[in-house]
Amino acid sequence: MTLKQTGLSGESLAALRSLIARRQPGYSLEAPFYTSPEIFDADMELIFSRTWIYVAVEPEVPEPGDYVTVNLGRNSIVILRDDDMGLRAFHNVCRHRGAKLVQGESGAVGNLVCPYHQWTYDLEGKLIYAEHMGEDFDKSCFGLKKVHVRSIAGLIFICLAAEAPADIDELDRVMTPYLAPHDIANTKIAASADLIEKGNWKLTLENNRECYHCSGNHPELTIPLFAYGFGFAPGQMDETELAQAARYDELVATSHARWESCGIPSAEVDHLDDCITGFRTQRLPIDQSGESQTLDTKVASRKLLGKLTDTALGGLSFWTQPNSWHHFMSDHIVTFTTIPIDAETTLVRTKWLVHKDAREGIDYDVENLTSVWNATNQQDATLVEYAQAGARTPAYEPGPYSPFTETLVEKFCKWYLDRLKAGLA
Amino acid sequence: MTLKQTGLSGESLAALRSLIARRQPGYSLEAPFYTSPEIFDADMELIFSRTWIYVAVEPEVPEPGDYVTVNLGRNSIVILRDDDMGLRAFHNVCRHRGAKLVQGESGAVGNLVCPYHQWTYDLEGKLIYAEHMGEDFDKSCFGLKKVHVRSIAGLIFICLAAEAPADIDELDRVMTPYLAPHDIANTKIAASADLIEKGNWKLTLENNRECYHCSGNHPELTIPLFAYGFGFAPGQMDETELAQAARYDELVATSHARWESCGIPSAEVDHLDDCITGFRTQRLPIDQSGESQTLDTKVASRKLLGKLTDTALGGLSFWTQPNSWHHFMSDHIVTFTTIPIDAETTLVRTKWLVHKDAREGIDYDVENLTSVWNATNQQDATLVEYAQAGARTPAYEPGPYSPFTETLVEKFCKWYLDRLKAGLA
Amino acid sequence: MTLKQTGLSGESLAALRSLIARRQPGYSLEAPFYTSPEIFDADMELIFSRTWIYVAVEPEVPEPGDYVTVNLGRNSIVILRDDDMGLRAFHNVCRHRGAKLVQGESGAVGNLVCPYHQWTYDLEGKLIYAEHMGEDFDKSCFGLKKVHVRSIAGLIFICLAAEAPADIDELDRVMTPYLAPHDIANTKIAASADLIEKGNWKLTLENNRECYHCSGNHPELTIPLFAYGFGFAPGQMDETELAQAARYDELVATSHARWESCGIPSAEVDHLDDCITGFRTQRLPIDQSGESQTLDTKVASRKLLGKLTDTALGGLSFWTQPNSWHHFMSDHIVTFTTIPIDAETTLVRTKWLVHKDAREGIDYDVENLTSVWNATNQQDATLVEYAQAGARTPAYEPGPYSPFTETLVEKFCKWYLDRLKAGLA
Repeated sequence: MTLKQTGLSGESLAALRSLIARRQPGYSLEAPFYTSPEIFDADMELIFSRTWIYVAVEPEVPEPGDYVTVNLGRNSIVILRDDDMGLRAFHNVCRHRGAKLVQGESGAVGNLVCPYHQWTYDLEGKLIYAEHMGEDFDKSCFGLKKVHVRSIAGLIFICLAAEAPADIDELDRVMTPYLAPHDIANTKIAASADLIEKGNWKLTLENNRECYHCSGNHPELTIPLFAYGFGFAPGQMDETELAQAARYDELVATSHARWESCGIPSAEVDHLDDCITGFRTQRLPIDQSGESQTLDTKVASRKLLGKLTDTALGGLSFWTQPNSWHHFMSDHIVTFTTIPIDAETTLVRTKWLVHKDAREGIDYDVENLTSVWNATNQQDATLVEYAQAGARTPAYEPGPYSPFTETLVEKFCKWYLDRLKAGLA
Repeated sequence: MTLKQTGLSGESLAALRSLIARRQPGYSLEAPFYTSPEIFDADMELIFSRTWIYVAVEPEVPEPGDYVTVNLGRNSIVILRDDDMGLRAFHNVCRHRGAKLVQGESGAVGNLVCPYHQWTYDLEGKLIYAEHMGEDFDKSCFGLKKVHVRSIAGLIFICLAAEAPADIDELDRVMTPYLAPHDIANTKIAASADLIEKGNWKLTLENNRECYHCSGNHPELTIPLFAYGFGFAPGQMDETELAQAARYDELVATSHARWESCGIPSAEVDHLDDCITGFRTQRLPIDQSGESQTLDTKVASRKLLGKLTDTALGGLSFWTQPNSWHHFMSDHIVTFTTIPIDAETTLVRTKWLVHKDAREGIDYDVENLTSVWNATNQQDATLVEYAQAGARTPAYEPGPYSPFTETLVEKFCKWYLDRLKAGLA
Repeated sequence: MTLKQTGLSGESLAALRSLIARRQPGYSLEAPFYTSPEIFDADMELIFSRTWIYVAVEPEVPEPGDYVTVNLGRNSIVILRDDDMGLRAFHNVCRHRGAKLVQGESGAVGNLVCPYHQWTYDLEGKLIYAEHMGEDFDKSCFGLKKVHVRSIAGLIFICLAAEAPADIDELDRVMTPYLAPHDIANTKIAASADLIEKGNWKLTLENNRECYHCSGNHPELTIPLFAYGFGFAPGQMDETELAQAARYDELVATSHARWESCGIPSAEVDHLDDCITGFRTQRLPIDQSGESQTLDTKVASRKLLGKLTDTALGGLSFWTQPNSWHHFMSDHIVTFTTIPIDAETTLVRTKWLVHKDAREGIDYDVENLTSVWNATNQQDATLVEYAQAGARTPAYEPGPYSPFTETLVEKFCKWYLDRLKAGLA
C-alpha cells in the first residue's frame, strides 16, 4: 500500500492487468472485480473520474444560487445554477484549509461562503473575499476547481476528468430528439428514494441490464412489462410461446410505426459497447392498457408531460454507461443513478418526475406513481446482495451469461473492461 | 496487497515464516498471531480450509432435503441429507451468476433453486434446470462444488481441501466406541447459543485448553469439576492439598475401572499434537453427586441417552484441533464449535443435546440444562476479550505457560504451528 | 503491508519521506497527513510514543492505589499513586498471558491482580504472586513494564520512549512559576467531557492553534476573548480598527505590568517549534469584567484557586506539543488533551478544575462553569469534521496559512514535521 490517496501499487496493477487479459467473454467477471477495494479505487479513478456521469436533473436547480451536491468516490461536487442561468460544477472544497464548503444535499446561496474562515466565492467559483491574508495575497490564484457539466435535454451529467470525452456530443445529437417530447425542463420531482444495496456497483448494473430475473422476482414490474421484451431462447420454447413471441414482435413494429408517424422517435439505438460515452435507447410497448409503468398500467399523472396528448406512448428506456437508466412515459419519468460507495456497497438513487403543474393528490398520487419501482428496487437490492455474498466466497467462479437474455450484461462488462484497459494504457 | 482474495504476499509470507521459526516453546504466541488480518487469512486457508472442521450434529438434518449452512472464513457451505439418507456438503454458490443459493441457517428443500434466475440443482448437486441458456449449453459442467463431509458417531465434520486428511479414519476408529454409548443419532437439540467473543479464535482455544483460570473465574463450572482434574504444581502445595490430590487420583482410577467393566471406555487418549486430525479424550469423575455438569451435579434430563442406565458416568470430554470440544454425560451432551469471524472476533456455538424422546418441562428444564455452560461461556468471553486487548498493545510479549496447568495450551500451539509450517512448505 | 504491529513498510517510508521533503512552508499539509492510516501509525510511533504527552492531573490519583488508565495508540497505560505517594506508570498488560490488567478508566487497588489467572503485582510493578508456575520460575523477571511519568505543577505527562526527552526539565523550570499560583494540587475535577471529533488529530490541533475562525464560529468564546488577541492583518484594517488594536496592545502591556508586580508571571514564552518538548504560554486580559472564560466574564467559582485573591488575573494559556492546551484563571482551570483514535477520529478530553473546597451549587455551578468551552468544543468538532471531509477529497490541495493569524498553526506543522524527520533519521 502506498501513501497515495488514489491509484494502485505496482504489484496490484500487474494483477489487475492479468485479470483483464484473461477474462473469458460471455462469462461473469472474476471475484476481485466485485470485492477488491483496490479495483474499486481503480473503478473510481479510471471509470467514474473519466467518463460522463449522470447525477441530477435540471429542475433540481431552477434558480440562480440553487445547488445540489453529489459524492463520487471521495469527491464532493457542488452543481449550481449561476447568475446567467448557466450550470456550473465545482469541487466542494475551500482553497484555504480545505474545509468542505457546503454540507447538505441541496440548498440555495448568494455566494459560496466557507464556514471555517469565511473565504467567499461567487457563483462562477472566483474567490472574492479572504480576511487576514495580507496585501500580497493573490485571490485570483485560489478560485474553486471546476468540473465539467453538461445537460442532455435536462439530464445533468458531470465529468471529473481534465478533458471530458467529446463523444457526449453524439449522445446529445441522438438522444435529444427522443427525450425532448418529455420536456424535463417543465417537470418537478414528485418523489425520490435512496436505496443502499449491499453489493458492488457492477452487480447493480448487471442486474439492471437483463430481465432474465424478472419473471421469478418482480411480480409488480412484470405487469406493465412484456415477457418477450428482453430476449429468450427460441430453441427451448414450445409452439404457443413462439406464437406469443411473434405477436409481440409485430406489436413492437406497429407501435413504432404509429409513434414515429406522430413525431415520437422510437427506433432502437445501441452504443453500449462501441464508444466512451456508451448508451442505448428503445421505446417499447407497455402491456395491458399500455400507458405507464404502474400497477394498473394506466398513467399515474393526469397532467401529461410537455405537449403530449397521447397517453399510450409505451416506455422510452435510456441507459448510459457506467451508471444510469431512465424510463420516459407520457405522464412521468423515472430516472436512476448508481453511486458506488465502496467495493461492496452501492447507492441507487431513484427520482420520479411529473409535469411541474401536476398537483399531488389531484393529478397524481405518490404511492401509485412509485409503487412499481420501489418494489422492484427492493427486490433487486436483495438479488444484488445474494450475488455479492456469492462473489465473496472462494468457491465463486465466473459463470456463463445467457446468449439470449444477458447480452446487455455482456456489453456492460465489455465496455467496463475496455475503459479500464484504456485507463491503464 | 494483491488482488487475490486469499493468500499472503511475498513480504508477509517471509514475515510469517520468521515468526513461526523464532517461536519460543512454552510461551504464548507473538502478538501478530492474535491480531494480524493476514495471519487470520493464513489461518483460514492453511488451517480451516485443510483440516477436518466440526460444524454440526446429525440430528440437525434428519430427513432428505433438510439442510444447515455454515460460514467458514469467506466460504458458505450447505450441508444436507440427500434422498438416500446420505450426508452431502456443497459450496452454497450458484454456478450461473454466483448468487448465494440458500440464505438462512437451516431449512428443508426439494431441490436447491437459485433465487436469482431459478437455476435448479438436485440434492446430489447436479444442475437439472437452467432456462434461456440455449441448446449448446451443457448442464453437466455446472454442478455444485462438493465439500468433504464425514460423520463421527453423529458429529458432522467437513473439510474444504481437495484431498482431506486421511487420519480422520484413526479418529473414527478410536472415538466411535467412546461416543457410541451416548447415541447422538437419537438425540435432539434442546438448546443452542451463539456467542461472539471479541478475540482471536486461538485465544478462545487457549482458554478452552486449560482450567488454571477456572478457580478465579468460573463459580458455576467448579461445582461439578474437581479442582485437581486439570493439573497443579506439586512443589507449591501443602500437605493437605497433596493428600487431596492423591485422593483425586485414586477416584479417577477406581472410576475408570468401574466404567470400563460396564463397557464404557474411559481411558485417556491424547493425539492433540502428533497427527493432522488432532484430538484428545478422557472420561473424568464429576464432583458431589457425580452425575452431570449442572449446578446441583445431578442429571439435567431424566431420560438418559441411548441405552444408558447408570446416571453417574462422569463426563467424557472430547477435544479436536483446531476448533471443537464436547462433554458427554449420561443424560446430555454439550458440544462446542468455534468459528473464526475475523482476526479479532470469534463465534462460539454451543448446543445441548438430550434424548430425542425427552420432554421439555417434564424430563428436563432448559434453564437447568444450560446454566453452567451459559455462565461459563460468558465468563470465558470476558477473559478472551481481556487477552485480546492486551495482545493488541505494543507492550505485549509472549509470557510463560505453566508447565503444570497449561500443557494442553502448549500442545494446541504446537499443533497450530506445525499445520502452518506444513501449509507453507 | 507487513505483519509487524507498528511501523511503515519500505515503500511507504519512501513515500512519507518524500511528502515531508516537499512540504511547502506556510501551507497546510498534504492530504495523506490527515487521512493515511499508515501516517497515523507513524504519528503514534514517532510522535506520541517518543515525546511527553499530557494525560491527567494529580488530583485524579490523590491516594496510594488510586489509578487512571489512558489509551495512547494501541497502548494501554495505568498511572497510579504508589505507597510512597509517588506517581508510577505501567503498561497495563499482564506478563503471563497478556491480559489487560485493569479495565476501567479509573479506580483504586491494593495490588494489581490480573483477572485471568490472578498473577499479582504490587504498586511498584513487581510480580509478587503467580500460582502453578513451579519452583524454577523467577518472578523477578516478570514485573510490569514501566512508562516514564512526570508531574509539572500537577499536570501529569507520560512518555513511552525508552529514553524520554530531557528538555522536559526546561519546560518544568519555565512553567512551574506560571502554574504554581493556580495550585493544581488543591483542586478537584468539577466536570469533564469526552468529545469524539471526526477528524485527524492534527486538524484538531491546527484548529486549536488559531482564532481566525473564532469570530465566525464561537459566539460564546468571543465574549471573554478579545478579537485582537490572536493576530490580524494591519494592512487590511481601517482607522477605527487600527485604533482598537493599539488600545488592546496597551491593555496587554499595563495588565502584564500589574500582574508581574503581584508575583503573577505573565510574559509570553514561545518554544513551540524550537525544542522537542515544545510549549508556549502567555497571560492575556479577558474582555468586559475581565475575570474568567464564562458567558458573563465573571469568575465561575467564588472560591479562588490557591492563595489568589485578585479575581481579574486574565487567562494564562499554556500549550504543549503535540496535544494539549490549558487555560488558568483565578477561579478555575480548563485543561484539554487530545488522544488520536485513528487517522480520522480524535478524542478531545476536557476537564474543569476548581478549588477542592469549592462547593457545587454554592460556590460554583457546573453549567455556568462549562458552558463556554462545551459550546466551543462542539463548534470546533464541526469545523474539524468539515476540514477532514475536504482533506478526504482528491481535489484538496494544501492552502496558504494567514501570515498574521495562523502563525502558531505553522509552528505546529513545523514542529510535527521536525519530529517525524528526527524519528525517521
